[in-house]
Amino acid sequence: MNEDRRVGVWLVGGRGSVATTAMTGAAAVAAGLAEPTGLVTMRPPFTDAGLVGLGDLIFGGHDVVETPLAIRAARLVDDGVLPVGLPGALAGALEAAESEQRPGITGREARIEPQASLARMVSDLNAFRTRHDLGRVVVLNVSSTEAPVEPHPAHENPAALMDALDQNLAVLPPSALYALAAIETGCAYVDFTPSVGARLPAIEALAEAHEVPLAGSDGKTGETFMKSALAPAFAARALKVRSWSGMNLLGGGDGAALADPARAQSKLDSKGRLLEEILGYPVEAPIYIQDVRDMGEWKTAWDHVVFEGFLGIRMKLQFTWEGCDSALAAPLILDLIRLAALALERGESGVLTNLAFFFKDPAGTREHQLHRQYEMLERWVLQKVAA
Amino acid sequence: MNEDRRVGVWLVGGRGSVATTAMTGAAAVAAGLAEPTGLVTMRPPFTDAGLVGLGDLIFGGHDVVETPLAIRAARLVDDGVLPVGLPGALAGALEAAESEQRPGITGREARIEPQASLARMVSDLNAFRTRHDLGRVVVLNVSSTEAPVEPHPAHENPAALMDALDQNLAVLPPSALYALAAIETGCAYVDFTPSVGARLPAIEALAEAHEVPLAGSDGKTGETFMKSALAPAFAARALKVRSWSGMNLLGGGDGAALADPARAQSKLDSKGRLLEEILGYPVEAPIYIQDVRDMGEWKTAWDHVVFEGFLGIRMKLQFTWEGCDSALAAPLILDLIRLAALALERGESGVLTNLAFFFKDPAGTREHQLHRQYEMLERWVLQKVAA
Amino acid sequence: MNEDRRVGVWLVGGRGSVATTAMTGAAAVAAGLAEPTGLVTMRPPFTDAGLVGLGDLIFGGHDVVETPLAIRAARLVDDGVLPVGLPGALAGALEAAESEQRPGITGREARIEPQASLARMVSDLNAFRTRHDLGRVVVLNVSSTEAPVEPHPAHENPAALMDALDQNLAVLPPSALYALAAIETGCAYVDFTPSVGARLPAIEALAEAHEVPLAGSDGKTGETFMKSALAPAFAARALKVRSWSGMNLLGGGDGAALADPARAQSKLDSKGRLLEEILGYPVEAPIYIQDVRDMGEWKTAWDHVVFEGFLGIRMKLQFTWEGCDSALAAPLILDLIRLAALALERGESGVLTNLAFFFKDPAGTREHQLHRQYEMLERWVLQKVAA
Amino acid sequence: MNEDRRVGVWLVGGRGSVATTAMTGAAAVAAGLAEPTGLVTMRPPFTDAGLVGLGDLIFGGHDVVETPLAIRAARLVDDGVLPVGLPGALAGALEAAESEQRPGITGREARIEPQASLARMVSDLNAFRTRHDLGRVVVLNVSSTEAPVEPHPAHENPAALMDALDQNLAVLPPSALYALAAIETGCAYVDFTPSVGARLPAIEALAEAHEVPLAGSDGKTGETFMKSALAPAFAARALKVRSWSGMNLLGGGDGAALADPARAQSKLDSKGRLLEEILGYPVEAPIYIQDVRDMGEWKTAWDHVVFEGFLGIRMKLQFTWEGCDSALAAPLILDLIRLAALALERGESGVLTNLAFFFKDPAGTREHQLHRQYEMLERWVLQKVAA
Repeated sequence: MNEDRRVGVWLVGGRGSVATTAMTGAAAVAAGLAEPTGLVTMRPPFTDAGLVGLGDLIFGGHDVVETPLAIRAARLVDDGVLPVGLPGALAGALEAAESEQRPGITGREARIEPQASLARMVSDLNAFRTRHDLGRVVVLNVSSTEAPVEPHPAHENPAALMDALDQNLAVLPPSALYALAAIETGCAYVDFTPSVGARLPAIEALAEAHEVPLAGSDGKTGETFMKSALAPAFAARALKVRSWSGMNLLGGGDGAALADPARAQSKLDSKGRLLEEILGYPVEAPIYIQDVRDMGEWKTAWDHVVFEGFLGIRMKLQFTWEGCDSALAAPLILDLIRLAALALERGESGVLTNLAFFFKDPAGTREHQLHRQYEMLERWVLQKVAA
Repeated sequence: MNEDRRVGVWLVGGRGSVATTAMTGAAAVAAGLAEPTGLVTMRPPFTDAGLVGLGDLIFGGHDVVETPLAIRAARLVDDGVLPVGLPGALAGALEAAESEQRPGITGREARIEPQASLARMVSDLNAFRTRHDLGRVVVLNVSSTEAPVEPHPAHENPAALMDALDQNLAVLPPSALYALAAIETGCAYVDFTPSVGARLPAIEALAEAHEVPLAGSDGKTGETFMKSALAPAFAARALKVRSWSGMNLLGGGDGAALADPARAQSKLDSKGRLLEEILGYPVEAPIYIQDVRDMGEWKTAWDHVVFEGFLGIRMKLQFTWEGCDSALAAPLILDLIRLAALALERGESGVLTNLAFFFKDPAGTREHQLHRQYEMLERWVLQKVAA
Repeated sequence: MNEDRRVGVWLVGGRGSVATTAMTGAAAVAAGLAEPTGLVTMRPPFTDAGLVGLGDLIFGGHDVVETPLAIRAARLVDDGVLPVGLPGALAGALEAAESEQRPGITGREARIEPQASLARMVSDLNAFRTRHDLGRVVVLNVSSTEAPVEPHPAHENPAALMDALDQNLAVLPPSALYALAAIETGCAYVDFTPSVGARLPAIEALAEAHEVPLAGSDGKTGETFMKSALAPAFAARALKVRSWSGMNLLGGGDGAALADPARAQSKLDSKGRLLEEILGYPVEAPIYIQDVRDMGEWKTAWDHVVFEGFLGIRMKLQFTWEGCDSALAAPLILDLIRLAALALERGESGVLTNLAFFFKDPAGTREHQLHRQYEMLERWVLQKVAA
Repeated sequence: MNEDRRVGVWLVGGRGSVATTAMTGAAAVAAGLAEPTGLVTMRPPFTDAGLVGLGDLIFGGHDVVETPLAIRAARLVDDGVLPVGLPGALAGALEAAESEQRPGITGREARIEPQASLARMVSDLNAFRTRHDLGRVVVLNVSSTEAPVEPHPAHENPAALMDALDQNLAVLPPSALYALAAIETGCAYVDFTPSVGARLPAIEALAEAHEVPLAGSDGKTGETFMKSALAPAFAARALKVRSWSGMNLLGGGDGAALADPARAQSKLDSKGRLLEEILGYPVEAPIYIQDVRDMGEWKTAWDHVVFEGFLGIRMKLQFTWEGCDSALAAPLILDLIRLAALALERGESGVLTNLAFFFKDPAGTREHQLHRQYEMLERWVLQKVAA
């Protein structure tokens, strides 16, 4: 029954820093070359949940970039993201994943020939599944952030959406085409980006119709993770947050993508919602993202929080969070793959609200408090095991 | 039945900044002159718990200092702790509390004539209760931090302890004598300081014997509050904390008291325990307290947290917490008074472990995670109401 | 000869926070009610330079706002900028200044009737000088930041500029009209804002022609002040600055004005030039200004500096600067008034490059190193005294 | 004449991180494998001063540690101090230096057999000079910080000191014995540590008598470097510094050495003097050093500066400085060697006050302002060249 344990993983943005770190890391932990630090599902109580082993993941992916994984991994060593020597020790795993990379959908293709693009994705996913004789496949999007989608009536209705594609209308961004391809081929779909493609009502309806699980969106790796831990503390102490300003410096591809104000808007929207949800009142909470090329794979967030205490006195919390984006995202991606595979195994379909713990903008729920999200996750994983 | 609602509050350290802020604030909120910001028990779900009203608190206290409350309050206005004009508007309340201040026990008295000191405290408390015809009285210690107690066999056993006092042996610091006086006169006793006096086994046993509730110790107002919110987030994400250094600058009386290394040790001990309890492994976590007279009533804590993420990469969180100590402590004190009065009303005795939310070093429990402490508090307050 | 010592001061933006703080502070220091903290010219060696006394300044001004100075001063007390009681103690001085406030030029007036606006300013200045029988008058601009000026050929040439005004062409923003009025009436003109109006070549030529001194621009009060002190230290140690990101949170009127991207550009331009000038190589140095209304009169800048040391190792300096904008600007304004009055006394005309110490974007020089600017200032003040 | 250009460098603490980084770096820069970042003397105007080339330095040293340089260098690669591959590429240079390491003086030897220890050092230095036929030798102390010296009358007088040594009295710590050995053998002596050994009056007198130059003490690498750049800025702006608290976290050997309160005192003394010297008034300026083993070769300093501005308003500067101690110190050491060699060439003797730029506690001068120290250095190097 070893065959059954294997799970196919198809990463959109499969040649990016995050994907490369995740694949290298999965192989490293499976081989005993690294500790499972940062992997939530490798700690109790999740260790007893029968989740797929990291060594049983078969990786493939789409990307519009052509840099081979081995070269990307070497760069990540130079940037201090991957330990020296690790990519060499895992050359076989990287080669295997490299052989499963296929050309992704460009923005131009999504506009000009959406139907052909979708068909190509579907074909690639089916071929991947067949080639490896895979029961379960998880598609996870870690590509660059897209600009917000232009609203269109077809977004609201599955039939209208399929019609529009049949007419080759440019109504969907690449992320939505990937999501559709996953749904049509019976794969789970996880959106780790703030791109809104997979959040359209028509897509959610199609996922339910095809009985496929969806999860998203926008991986919660840094500043928002901190916010979701700290804001509940202010609420519990009845301290009134007056302003919470968040300034983010980031380099690498992500910084450049977000230097485009339209794309940044997707990110900011997904970061901005949680304070009011947690605190119960509106807060002046500007967020800004600055591209600093020099920072490479690293990001620093500075948050400046002014709060009011007893008798109206003003006090302050400031924090800086200095992290490596790929190293923060990669283990969450592996956790999500394992959990989405569990949902597939259980036959769950539609939006997986109980994975809110991992997302800045959790689909299907307004729960933003980190500890409550963790409790939801625990309950979901364990209750089902018990059943 | 209005008489029954009143609760006597006896503050040890009754002329200090914290006590003065608490008394002024209680009167201000009761009079509608200030919002109940920072008061946990003035928010849902605690608003339905039938807790004593802030206007029904009758204040008195012991102090070794003689500065009248009105003068202390004026200084707190100068230091920006109390709003301009507030002490004047509440002059009546401050005068009433001033008339109930009595001389406290000095360190010398505790050593030389402990029995007489204890008798004096008992007499003061009984007279206070009689004078105001009070059913319930809460004694709360907000005096300066004491040096750790020299161990003595009598600390372990109630009978031995009472014997030692009968022989006028110097086995107890002032804080323990205050606790004893509270216990003997049927008052609840809350220790808001890190002084270990009230944490001795003999005292806990006496509280149970006299059916009096105890709570403590060391109010969680700043850096530790942050730690108890943040450390669970690191644990939930399987991020490994490698070092957590906390440097505290504080002025005012508290800074000066803690400049004495022996006293600081009490504080550091009570701050140092929680990381390992929450994370489950030992962490290099130095804590340092620096007296900076210039900071007056304010304190700034800087915490420098190095953690390890995926594949061993090191990342960093740093925060500064800039707060006014008295403004942070005062509402917690009022919350604790209301909750201790509830325990008296319910006839609970011994250590109130469900008040852990308020303390750096919660008596009777190892639960340090802020959100779990909050849940304990909620359950305790509401479940009893239901019963 | 006491008459001769008096100097008229005409503040453009005369009812703003900065102007009100400067006028109140001048009166307070003159009356011995406050120390001269922050006043560079009240310390040696400038105390021997025979500068005008703060008590000999006669204040007036233009503003488009109508809030009386007394009300503005009361608000500044509420915001913690002015000490409680000070405006009351100096009511006479504030009333005198209030009686010398005149309506300023709106943006609309500058576009529609520039010539009439200019004539009105000239008339107001002449009347002020006559009313008080003043030998020397300094006009200083502390109004809100303007958007950058649309380039126009008339900006390059005095004759063309006067022609354009004669034809009522909208070629000048209000700041330039104020500068022209000062020049035409023989007043010194100091630009404390980043508005480029007074920096046009035609205006500088007119100042020389009328033998009037000019100084500017953009008062160096916070982040840039820090940069001009720190960047020379990196240079002296041969440490290579790789990126220097500056994020600024500010409230009050200034924050709102700079929320307008066009106006912010003026500010950013004037802040961005100095790093390359000091270090000698281009640096990735983004600057961002965020309006946070909640911050009121306060601003916090966070700077994140990555530098390279020996053998290419990367290290970091981060700082936060938390200041009250008006309190930082006001003493510099008083210093500039005293120094511009000195230039008038000496008959100096044209751009006063030796006042670079006070400006983010010093006119007439590329010297940005704080200590060199200070030496220039010292030399200029003292050498002339000696002569 | 190539022979004449060579300079012998004898490092006390020759196997430590700082010495290893300095030697590796000198070879790397000389070989064109690294940029001279951080080397002050490799930038104009010092490039024209005819200083010894980095490739003409011959390294040797004393140490009580026996770990070979190659192993130490490999560890520094692991810790991110040295670039991967660099020690391998420079194996020859490291081997040459390794062959010139000799056993240092332990604390015990300094107490029990000071005379024999001194004789051994003298012999080692003479042999080194002879072996390489060196005209000029510079001895530089980068060993661990010593505890302050117990005062002794012999410290004041050269004759008394030599007498005491003849009698084998334990009056000198190792650092002083190394200084004496340098002086007796005609070497320049530079103290890069806060150890006070070489600062005794008797030693300074002996240096003058032997016509040998001395420089020191305590290399200014981080927090104090920042202070010496920032404090003059506060002074220039007449802003009153009220408190300046400096908290330092450091790992590695230095952290452990300074965890010993007696040794830390040496460091704190040398850091504490400059604020009052620069500002002209006493400032509450606590400094604390915390050993955090986890930080390895890195250190983070947090400085919290409260200053008073116009009308007494309080404002704040906070900074964190995150640096690698060895990388900060190593280039300064190479600069000092080149400059001490210049002093030898010129026949200068006694304390080199013009090297204050490099030291926390500059010998022979109270000038602490960084830019003035830089000007002193420039003048000294260039004026002499001109002469």
